[in-house]
Amino acid sequence: MRPVYLDNNATTRVDPLVVDAMLPFFTEQFGNPSSIHSFGASVGASVKKARQQLQQLLGAEHDHEIIYTASGTESDNTAILSALEAMPGRTEIITSAVEHPAVLALCQYLEKAGRAKVHYIGVDSLGRLDLEAYRAALSDKVALVTFMWANNETGTIFPVEALAELAKEVGALFHTDAVQAVGKVPITLKGSAIDMLSLSGHKLHAPKGVGALYVKRGARFKPLLRGGHQERGRRAGTENTPGVIGLGKAAELAIAHMADEQTRVKALRDRLESAILQRVPNCFVNGDPRERLPNTTNIAFEYVEGEAILLHLTRQGIAASSGSACTSGSLEPSHVMRAMNVPFTAAHGSIRFSFSRDNVPEDVDQVIEVLPKILENLRELSPFWAGANKGPNAFNPVYA
Amino acid sequence: MRPVYLDNNATTRVDPLVVDAMLPFFTEQFGNPSSIHSFGASVGASVKKARQQLQQLLGAEHDHEIIYTASGTESDNTAILSALEAMPGRTEIITSAVEHPAVLALCQYLEKAGRAKVHYIGVDSLGRLDLEAYRAALSDKVALVTFMWANNETGTIFPVEALAELAKEVGALFHTDAVQAVGKVPITLKGSAIDMLSLSGHKLHAPKGVGALYVKRGARFKPLLRGGHQERGRRAGTENTPGVIGLGKAAELAIAHMADEQTRVKALRDRLESAILQRVPNCFVNGDPRERLPNTTNIAFEYVEGEAILLHLTRQGIAASSGSACTSGSLEPSHVMRAMNVPFTAAHGSIRFSFSRDNVPEDVDQVIEVLPKILENLRELSPFWAGANKGPNAFNPVYA
Repeated sequence: MRPVYLDNNATTRVDPLVVDAMLPFFTEQFGNPSSIHSFGASVGASVKKARQQLQQLLGAEHDHEIIYTASGTESDNTAILSALEAMPGRTEIITSAVEHPAVLALCQYLEKAGRAKVHYIGVDSLGRLDLEAYRAALSDKVALVTFMWANNETGTIFPVEALAELAKEVGALFHTDAVQAVGKVPITLKGSAIDMLSLSGHKLHAPKGVGALYVKRGARFKPLLRGGHQERGRRAGTENTPGVIGLGKAAELAIAHMADEQTRVKALRDRLESAILQRVPNCFVNGDPRERLPNTTNIAFEYVEGEAILLHLTRQGIAASSGSACTSGSLEPSHVMRAMNVPFTAAHGSIRFSFSRDNVPEDVDQVIEVLPKILENLRELSPFWAGANKGPNAFNPVYA
Repeated sequence: MRPVYLDNNATTRVDPLVVDAMLPFFTEQFGNPSSIHSFGASVGASVKKARQQLQQLLGAEHDHEIIYTASGTESDNTAILSALEAMPGRTEIITSAVEHPAVLALCQYLEKAGRAKVHYIGVDSLGRLDLEAYRAALSDKVALVTFMWANNETGTIFPVEALAELAKEVGALFHTDAVQAVGKVPITLKGSAIDMLSLSGHKLHAPKGVGALYVKRGARFKPLLRGGHQERGRRAGTENTPGVIGLGKAAELAIAHMADEQTRVKALRDRLESAILQRVPNCFVNGDPRERLPNTTNIAFEYVEGEAILLHLTRQGIAASSGSACTSGSLEPSHVMRAMNVPFTAAHGSIRFSFSRDNVPEDVDQVIEVLPKILENLRELSPFWAGANKGPNAFNPVYA
């Protein structure tokens, strides 16, 4: 049985070219980049080159606007805690109800600890941000606005540039968790109103354990990790040189594959989505039909448990996801589905298929071959299915 | 010219067996360990095994006492910030004047921000902790005592177990930065009074970008990074699986090589040290002659700049260090030399040679061959050397 990996929003396979780029830095050029001898100094130049590759992927103005971190989570946490500290007199945060736990869990904690007041802006049934509520929450008490670029579960894209411009009007910092967007959609930070942006290596075919936080030159910033002078004093700790160099190579490859992501990968996603909507009754797509990542589809299957679908898919060698990997194991509908007000009968049965450039047409064929039968079998076991109103499928139009 | 690497306290070469252990987790077993499908689930078992390997190296009671981090710095910062938050009503920290910047810089920041009162306990000319001052600083206002296990510059070992027991008497948490000790000296945390211990992968032939914080079961703890439920909710962020598995393998290898470190590596260090003391006038060894890491020697050469010695050594293919890599680039004597009150004429000329199991007798031969001539040449340029009192060499007895 051929394994089919359609869980690329959880993590991607490291590109073998990335591994090749990293390998010399484990056993040959292993020096500490902070050392002055030749073992260390030569590494510094490679780290610099990697920073420039990442700068190019982000369309950033300066390579030193990139601060390496160990994960998207560290980047998100750093941005939020930095803003609260760097903006004295401002104690409010604006975010959305559909952010990644790396933003939400910290915000909830800060609220509980009495360290910040947090506005959680809602979304509509298509996952689109409530702009009116956002405008109403803006004030000169806001230290930070943090909205994700693209949602990890549905792929819905927020209009971050416009949102950032509104934040500027009240003097707040603007951060975006772009972990799911970087490498999938073109990004140009030069001239943007965005102050900070988080990304994670393992979402774009670089390894786990390395990420970055973009901080626009001139934007106020306070470090989270203190110690040595690495990253210009903005993030202490010996540089993860193999990881950083891998991330640089992955950025170079992401630029090279960007067109492929927008066309071939998107076509694979679209074909899977259409086939499922045609062949499986009572399902619909979650998310914004207009503004969505090219690689993601999230489909709600009524009257069935998502975990049961996943289990049967796994037995057929197919990896997909319900909700995000970070919250898996829970049988509750995800906070994203709840925020979108997806009806209970469907929210439990939402499955995310997320593609990457590693996917091929046969992957789609294999899912189309097995999924309708899996749904049929599972629904036969459901007491609700017999009496259900079997309606036509669409891009979640019933609830829009 | 054969390269000679004697800067293993800055960073070590990743063991090729560690790289081999990591490789499958980049491109084959690349799943997110939090995912329930087979791509992810199989990885979880390997992460568990790695945790047990590290548990064994530390002599810890439970594998879940290990929290993976991205660096020794993150581990140190987490321990300190956690203690302040987890011990309400206690706002003091006791540490030493010779800690790594990952401890000192954060303490200085917390002090400046009014978030903690910090006691910096001094050392004598051999680098030994002032026990009387430590006892005097202990009180029920102390949230955390943090003393390093072994000094990165001199290798001096603090009696951490005894120090931890004193901390327990006032109900304070005890943390040790054991970044330089783990893998070099045997450690048994089971039954110890130590609550938390930091380690860094790249100091023991694992890659950069992965570390760990040991937290004894039952010890109060608050996470630094918040988000997903990784590490039992104690450190959010997708696990760095290749790094973690590399660290596990490195722990296994460190156990296997522990006897070698105590005998063969120590003998290399001792031979270099003796030869230098014999052949180079006006130098002495910094640190505690009785309690010292087996791999480190720090030698103060009077009337010469350490950076100049390093430059000449580098030209001969020899990598060593003055002070720590994290503070390199500065021409001031290190905070460790200043705390030990090493005289100005010698503190500027202190060089650290740090060995590992990768070193061979020829490395020592090569240094012995070139170093006396380098010193002779440099000192000829020094206006102070001609009139200097050329005394005998020893284990810093002159100033003890």
